[in-house]
Amino acid sequence: MGFAASFCLLLFSHSLFAAKVTLDSSNWGLEAGKECVKCHSKTSAGLADQWRDSKHAEVGMNCLDCHQAESSEPDAIEHEGFTIATIVSPKDCGRCHQQEEEQNSSSVHANAVSLIKNRMPAMAGNLGGEAIIAVGCAQCHGSEVKVKGDGTLDTATWPNSGIGRINPDGSKGSCTSCHGRHRFSKAQARDPSSCMRCHSGPDSPDRAIYEASKHGMAFFAHRDKMNLDADSWVAGKDYNSAPTCTTCHMGAAGKLPSTHDVGIRNAWNLNTPVSEKQTLVIFEDGDKLEIPASQPMPGRGSEMTKIDGSLGKIKMVVPADRRRKAMRLVCLECHGKGFAEGFMSQFDSAVELYNEKFGKPAQAIMSALYEKGLLTPAPFDEPVEFTYWELWHDEGARARHGAAMGSPNHAWWEGLYLVSRNFYSRFLPQIKEVAGKDGETLIKQYVTDVEEHHGWLSKPQAGNPILGFGQGKQSNE
Amino acid sequence: MGFAASFCLLLFSHSLFAAKVTLDSSNWGLEAGKECVKCHSKTSAGLADQWRDSKHAEVGMNCLDCHQAESSEPDAIEHEGFTIATIVSPKDCGRCHQQEEEQNSSSVHANAVSLIKNRMPAMAGNLGGEAIIAVGCAQCHGSEVKVKGDGTLDTATWPNSGIGRINPDGSKGSCTSCHGRHRFSKAQARDPSSCMRCHSGPDSPDRAIYEASKHGMAFFAHRDKMNLDADSWVAGKDYNSAPTCTTCHMGAAGKLPSTHDVGIRNAWNLNTPVSEKQTLVIFEDGDKLEIPASQPMPGRGSEMTKIDGSLGKIKMVVPADRRRKAMRLVCLECHGKGFAEGFMSQFDSAVELYNEKFGKPAQAIMSALYEKGLLTPAPFDEPVEFTYWELWHDEGARARHGAAMGSPNHAWWEGLYLVSRNFYSRFLPQIKEVAGKDGETLIKQYVTDVEEHHGWLSKPQAGNPILGFGQGKQSNE
Amino acid sequence: MGFAASFCLLLFSHSLFAAKVTLDSSNWGLEAGKECVKCHSKTSAGLADQWRDSKHAEVGMNCLDCHQAESSEPDAIEHEGFTIATIVSPKDCGRCHQQEEEQNSSSVHANAVSLIKNRMPAMAGNLGGEAIIAVGCAQCHGSEVKVKGDGTLDTATWPNSGIGRINPDGSKGSCTSCHGRHRFSKAQARDPSSCMRCHSGPDSPDRAIYEASKHGMAFFAHRDKMNLDADSWVAGKDYNSAPTCTTCHMGAAGKLPSTHDVGIRNAWNLNTPVSEKQTLVIFEDGDKLEIPASQPMPGRGSEMTKIDGSLGKIKMVVPADRRRKAMRLVCLECHGKGFAEGFMSQFDSAVELYNEKFGKPAQAIMSALYEKGLLTPAPFDEPVEFTYWELWHDEGARARHGAAMGSPNHAWWEGLYLVSRNFYSRFLPQIKEVAGKDGETLIKQYVTDVEEHHGWLSKPQAGNPILGFGQGKQSNE
Repeated sequence: MGFAASFCLLLFSHSLFAAKVTLDSSNWGLEAGKECVKCHSKTSAGLADQWRDSKHAEVGMNCLDCHQAESSEPDAIEHEGFTIATIVSPKDCGRCHQQEEEQNSSSVHANAVSLIKNRMPAMAGNLGGEAIIAVGCAQCHGSEVKVKGDGTLDTATWPNSGIGRINPDGSKGSCTSCHGRHRFSKAQARDPSSCMRCHSGPDSPDRAIYEASKHGMAFFAHRDKMNLDADSWVAGKDYNSAPTCTTCHMGAAGKLPSTHDVGIRNAWNLNTPVSEKQTLVIFEDGDKLEIPASQPMPGRGSEMTKIDGSLGKIKMVVPADRRRKAMRLVCLECHGKGFAEGFMSQFDSAVELYNEKFGKPAQAIMSALYEKGLLTPAPFDEPVEFTYWELWHDEGARARHGAAMGSPNHAWWEGLYLVSRNFYSRFLPQIKEVAGKDGETLIKQYVTDVEEHHGWLSKPQAGNPILGFGQGKQSNE
Repeated sequence: MGFAASFCLLLFSHSLFAAKVTLDSSNWGLEAGKECVKCHSKTSAGLADQWRDSKHAEVGMNCLDCHQAESSEPDAIEHEGFTIATIVSPKDCGRCHQQEEEQNSSSVHANAVSLIKNRMPAMAGNLGGEAIIAVGCAQCHGSEVKVKGDGTLDTATWPNSGIGRINPDGSKGSCTSCHGRHRFSKAQARDPSSCMRCHSGPDSPDRAIYEASKHGMAFFAHRDKMNLDADSWVAGKDYNSAPTCTTCHMGAAGKLPSTHDVGIRNAWNLNTPVSEKQTLVIFEDGDKLEIPASQPMPGRGSEMTKIDGSLGKIKMVVPADRRRKAMRLVCLECHGKGFAEGFMSQFDSAVELYNEKFGKPAQAIMSALYEKGLLTPAPFDEPVEFTYWELWHDEGARARHGAAMGSPNHAWWEGLYLVSRNFYSRFLPQIKEVAGKDGETLIKQYVTDVEEHHGWLSKPQAGNPILGFGQGKQSNE
Repeated sequence: MGFAASFCLLLFSHSLFAAKVTLDSSNWGLEAGKECVKCHSKTSAGLADQWRDSKHAEVGMNCLDCHQAESSEPDAIEHEGFTIATIVSPKDCGRCHQQEEEQNSSSVHANAVSLIKNRMPAMAGNLGGEAIIAVGCAQCHGSEVKVKGDGTLDTATWPNSGIGRINPDGSKGSCTSCHGRHRFSKAQARDPSSCMRCHSGPDSPDRAIYEASKHGMAFFAHRDKMNLDADSWVAGKDYNSAPTCTTCHMGAAGKLPSTHDVGIRNAWNLNTPVSEKQTLVIFEDGDKLEIPASQPMPGRGSEMTKIDGSLGKIKMVVPADRRRKAMRLVCLECHGKGFAEGFMSQFDSAVELYNEKFGKPAQAIMSALYEKGLLTPAPFDEPVEFTYWELWHDEGARARHGAAMGSPNHAWWEGLYLVSRNFYSRFLPQIKEVAGKDGETLIKQYVTDVEEHHGWLSKPQAGNPILGFGQGKQSNE
């Protein structure tokens, strides 16, 4: 399949809203499960009531339909005469919700453990320890759930509802990350509060950004008109007040179908030292790989090394501009073409400014210092390593996400202003301190000699805002 | 008009709620506009649906009523056989909403571009660049919209809904900043979420402050009783659960009329190195000027230089205490007089403490360093300049806004505690580093010799809280 | 009463929901009070309308029932022919709401002034001043309300609705902290927004933590099903969507009764340099004392020194594990036993990691420096004192609260990551700067020699995440 076809596939491979369940209803509503309900209405009444409010209860499914297990399963336990498993994995949910499970299973969400596996030891491992990984990293990215000899779950790894959780049955992910048990509500997953548990704070500042955007403003003012629990939830048709996280990254809009592959519409990577547009490679077996758009585009049918190191045959290649076109279809439900293109153009320019003015020079200087042995190979044992890490990972990502989602405050004050302040007043002085003459040479090469971005350092200035302003003017004028 | 009269004018020049539209309804509902609706119900269904939910649709107005343009207008374009303009400016809205447009046009909101024009080059210009100004500063303050040769809008300046946007027709402002298109809802503008897009973050911390105030607490608990979409929305009459941003700064309350001049009830300036109470000068042509209350009060009928440099004849002078009286009328709908006065008195004292203990000494020291040439004239090329800027612009403003709006956390922990920490443990050491002996002399003069505020530095202390507390007591007692 | 009995008492001493009022209804609805209503419907219409929406109005109570005073009371004033007091104290509320008043009066909430009394002079006193204490500390902790000669209240101490306010009648607390006047709504106090006025920001980061937790996510998505204004509000029975702050710390759940003693279910102290599990000692007169679980458990009937220095006879001792068992009863309404125990175990491990890796070594080093005279006895006159204070009070507390309430972001990124960054890259360098050789010896003893936690500093590292990652891998691999 070529480029033209790939865009169509992006568009039409999924239905417009929640897919029909794939299991015949005669296969659920196990009689024996009614016993579970009876007892749990006493011992954990809230849990049972949540289920009673759910679509599952409405269609006659009960506890046992999801929790029953074969005794051969690693996490099978005996419980009041039944063989059950505590964890209901995406594989279990996929018996009925096949399409959602398939889309999710190869998404960046389901692969959230491998995403950080390499950096964890030197990051949360050294700086923290196992106990903080369990309540920190693993609660968003997912734990590798360990089963003890008696089938019960190791408390170092459970409870856990991280979105990339590696389950005892080998499946990846946790549907309850967004569809909290035991109500499993669509409305919850469509509400921004659902994404915000993980997409908040310095590592993923999207919560604060959304709330300070025009979209967030419209959502909070008109939440009651969002139709969040509707079966069909197509932007511009079933609701028009505001987009939520789900709308843009997963939701149906006009002809664009919904998807549970949350990263598919993203043209840029924004959580990197330097941003690059990215091509999505989809393999025959459904696995996916993101490669920088600057790399040669691999051919359909050719082979390529996958993340896990094995070779895969390429089924489809989706270039960055096709992904953006899909995203733009959402915009067009409420905005004109010129508006959407102008917005994207402003966003791109801001990312490129970050790249050229700060991202690339800081990366080049750090790489040179490691190469020259002026920094030890160990990360985070020297203060400048924290400064550099936060420059791209914290404030640098915030600036780029702020531009992506329309929060002026995060683009500038909590974004590029901080990048700039920390670059000029902390990073550069620390480089000089650590690397002396070598540091000064690097700074000259990558910073002060680059007239376009840093020429202001050596030019006379028109005015000085620091001392404040009188009557709408600067005090020193 | 004298002082007594000016207060009456502040009170009675505006009606109690949204003014009647000034255009005869026979002038709207253009037949041709129904074509727009037909097509846009397909190509941007969400947009059309928002309009369908609006008051505009209810009274029979359609797309063309607002978007039609003369071909002579700079941003007129041909679109499907119609001559239209993308931007509907306040001037356009003012055809019907004359009073709101007039009140807004001379407000600090409409003038938000000139407010930062002088400091932008040395701030976001040097530290960032054009691309970040477009997605940062300009999205709140407003861009100067540029029209290309073909009548389309330059994407460096559009899309933009900054509140002080300078439109192709020369008008200032953007009604959609608060009344988001295409629903243009009153409820949205009255909801705190509307203001929070810009009034959040270090530059304008009001969002977090409101949310942590008693007023915010009452709003979020009883939002459903706020009657936000009522035609008449007078505090104490049409709602009583909580004030929103709009209530205190713009809203009708008892006899106090509503206004679209958002700054008119503010007695202090709080976003300055040192706060001053401020007198509002209103010129015959409607232009306004804020002057410090410490300046001699100009006479009615006299002439004075306006912000743009031209001379203006003074129509009215509103001193700070009259402005506060207006604000206090809002308080009195739900609080007793003693309560309101006590609150104001606590607020004033906190601002004065900031001024005397930190604001003035830090300003004096920085001014002396610039004067003596111990700092280069260029702002932000020396670390202490960032420290000083944030001292008043970030934590210093937060402390004062926290006191103004009743958030204890922002008054102290995220406010004056940070001012104090940064003053003693960062600013003063940096001054010594930059200015050596001269720095020490300045610190002695402005800080350590000032017994009232800084005498504690040289006195024995009763206890030391830093090491923690046992059983409700300090551990070292 | 022994341990077994104490748990029962914890469980059954209170009724399942809001207690019946203890005053006969024939004692309220004073005829004269109808005059108050008539006048205040004009002069402060919002206030009167809030009351009209209240339960108080519903049962026939009016202004005078609460505000009437004897002329002998210190804050009695004459007002339009009536003798009234502005402040309605917990003692006044307790005439009807006896049980709530009793539970609250010995709680950590009611004692919030004495909690900080010893640290205030050297903290907000030196670093700030009286004016900021009034709008900061005192607005959460409570002021000591001063009455002027004419019976009116000193504006330096009033208005104030701090939860531990010391009232003119000697009672401690302010019911309107959570049940805002004049609606006094149960729904408001159960809404998280109610607690967030004080429990937000660096000193008490619970607001942000709750919002980023699974519980917060469920609350915001399903707030409309929370039944917040019900008379009976038992978790798992009257609502099941989510717990709010009130649910876990005060609410009824299954057999667990509600309580107005907000700290009673807390097993750990988390706002300390080093966390300890804590035993609650309850005296015959109702006073309470928290002692570290590491101290020998005092016997029932024995005597012990209370916070105010007087001797008290012990009525009951509640060890940490009993307190946790009470808290766990809330969990079990919606979670299985294994889930609840796993969660508690992860929480405990994270607190212990903080203690051992950072809390104890930093405390030991600081204590040694004070002892050796390498730091002046005055707190906050040396930069490292701010660093250490924030290490446990800000980021250290945030890490522990994040683990307690299930926010991965606050446990790690805004918690232990910051502790670690500040410990390694700021605290240790500052210790060397302040204490030279002595500092290095201390660092060796308490940090670098402790292989388990800090051994990574001297080991070769597998990889370096700082430079970013390519295709899901580290760039330098």
